Amino acid sequence: MIEDKNKTLTNISSLGEFGLIDHLTKEIKPINKSSLVGIGDDAAVLDYGDKQILVSTDLLVENVHFDLIYTPLKHLGYKAAVVNFSDICAMNGIPRQITVSLAISSKFSVEAIEELYEGIKLACKKYNVDIIGGDTTSSVSGLMISITVIGEAEKDKIVYRHGAEEGDLIFVSGNIGAAYMGLLILEREKAVYKEQSDMQPDLEGFDYLLERQLKPEARLDIIQKLKELDVVPTAMIDISDGLGSEILHICKQSGVGCNVYDNKFPLDPLTISTAENFGIMPEVAALSGGEDYELLFTIKQSDYEKLKDVEDLTPIGHITGKNALAYVVGASGGAVEIKAQGWDHMKNQQ
Amino acid sequence: MIEDKNKTLTNISSLGEFGLIDHLTKEIKPINKSSLVGIGDDAAVLDYGDKQILVSTDLLVENVHFDLIYTPLKHLGYKAAVVNFSDICAMNGIPRQITVSLAISSKFSVEAIEELYEGIKLACKKYNVDIIGGDTTSSVSGLMISITVIGEAEKDKIVYRHGAEEGDLIFVSGNIGAAYMGLLILEREKAVYKEQSDMQPDLEGFDYLLERQLKPEARLDIIQKLKELDVVPTAMIDISDGLGSEILHICKQSGVGCNVYDNKFPLDPLTISTAENFGIMPEVAALSGGEDYELLFTIKQSDYEKLKDVEDLTPIGHITGKNALAYVVGASGGAVEIKAQGWDHMKNQQ
Repeated sequence: MIEDKNKTLTNISSLGEFGLIDHLTKEIKPINKSSLVGIGDDAAVLDYGDKQILVSTDLLVENVHFDLIYTPLKHLGYKAAVVNFSDICAMNGIPRQITVSLAISSKFSVEAIEELYEGIKLACKKYNVDIIGGDTTSSVSGLMISITVIGEAEKDKIVYRHGAEEGDLIFVSGNIGAAYMGLLILEREKAVYKEQSDMQPDLEGFDYLLERQLKPEARLDIIQKLKELDVVPTAMIDISDGLGSEILHICKQSGVGCNVYDNKFPLDPLTISTAENFGIMPEVAALSGGEDYELLFTIKQSDYEKLKDVEDLTPIGHITGKNALAYVVGASGGAVEIKAQGWDHMKNQQ
Repeated sequence: MIEDKNKTLTNISSLGEFGLIDHLTKEIKPINKSSLVGIGDDAAVLDYGDKQILVSTDLLVENVHFDLIYTPLKHLGYKAAVVNFSDICAMNGIPRQITVSLAISSKFSVEAIEELYEGIKLACKKYNVDIIGGDTTSSVSGLMISITVIGEAEKDKIVYRHGAEEGDLIFVSGNIGAAYMGLLILEREKAVYKEQSDMQPDLEGFDYLLERQLKPEARLDIIQKLKELDVVPTAMIDISDGLGSEILHICKQSGVGCNVYDNKFPLDPLTISTAENFGIMPEVAALSGGEDYELLFTIKQSDYEKLKDVEDLTPIGHITGKNALAYVVGASGGAVEIKAQGWDHMKNQQ
């Protein structure tokens, strides 16, 4: 009953995830007065009254986004919620509600799904977010988690990706590259386990990196700090796909270039030593590794004084001229153009 | 690395879909001032200013909720959007925005996903809804569609499932049972096709039933009509799982019983003749067959005059006393208690 149209069909992997989204949504324009901003940022912006509403959604698929061999279900639930909160933070908003939809194959017990939900609830409790709905159904294979988050922001304080201007300073919160190192360790131990299943995994001493990978946090504390200090960034994004990919989003959408200095990247000592053990330059791990969920933002130079002594915020570079390129500048002064190297689940598809 | 806790685990199918949701969410209580109503109705209700916001979400999984053997992708996209709009209508609201998340396996081409998206966009155009975001990723097997819809409603006009009171009249829009008949025909032709793949499917004359199954509509027109006539139902739900299951939701959540009269059920002549050909009583198809996406609602008797001549609305019974049972009364006067027989994708899981 399926019609054969004898057309040449395009393989999705040839477009990649971002390419496919762009392709599918390029002609979509909001028509409702209440739809202020639609596709193309960390969250959509809706106008329903005094406050503005932010909406974002994430879909996590087993064996694409997570591997249950080394991901405890409670951690998975926690992370699935937190990455959504992080999208709202990245708009300078506060997450308030989520819906949770699960597709579950018959290999999961009720207790397993309870564990998952416990993690989601724990994250919601910590961030004061309400679970307001969802859908639960069976799947033919594996587990899928779809979460939509709703947040609020003050009308004139929403921060988009497109507001960076020449001369703005680039800041990053916390430290970066650690979540990626955690992933490498888990993958290494998984490989060992597959060879020799009676081996106990050797995870000792890597707690911090594993926690960064398995149980990340959204930087709502930074959003609150910025509010306290009366700083509204000119552009902001959360680091889910790696610093390089995210700074490119800001540059592309703002129509500017940037210089970031790799000796300014905030790196945890354990990230540095572990990267070196894996034979990777720590700066490359920071640039290309994803899932730190730190905030990357730009501010006017006049706001520098307010932020310069804030713990956990590091200036790493500045925005250059209109339509310039994005460069990472090495300690020796040499500059390398940043090109997208983040995760792309479509291109990585097997 | 998976810990064996030697616990007795519970099979999800023993709880069923509704059971699992209840089990997972029973202790969840909203904490944010803006979360007026959370889990348990067709949509959550949020308070962010002048208007109230409705949020609902649906997850559709290939080979659980849809079968691509007989479901054109464009129709699938249309239906996936419309069933979400229907949830907002069921709260007496107007759908305004959706987010669309897709998990896609490598068997799908870009053109296939374009078709799917065309259907979603067509539905959005027809209902004036904006696509404001989403996520697209690969899946290990099959297609999954997760849509979250946001709608608005006037503060004092939101209709819940729990407002029905003794003496209220029960109305249904359109006709019911047709989508289920459409499904039976498609399943029959699929079975024939599997036996003999050179056979052309015999779908002639069943257009109406197939359209009801493959391309349902949300009854936004009824919501607009109710507004025009200044009628606010006391309780409302959309018929996704069959009349019997839905009236039970209203009765259970309102703490009342009901009598519905099977000779009052609005049935299309083609539904009747097709049901008879399949050896099914048409009233049973109406009661147990799902996916009509008609509205089922209750009104105060004093509103009856306003609705009695509205085309496409049929009174089918009335609400009985507190904590009474739900009955379907036959033409002979005999009454049968209604028990949940709707779709339950968890219990049907293989």
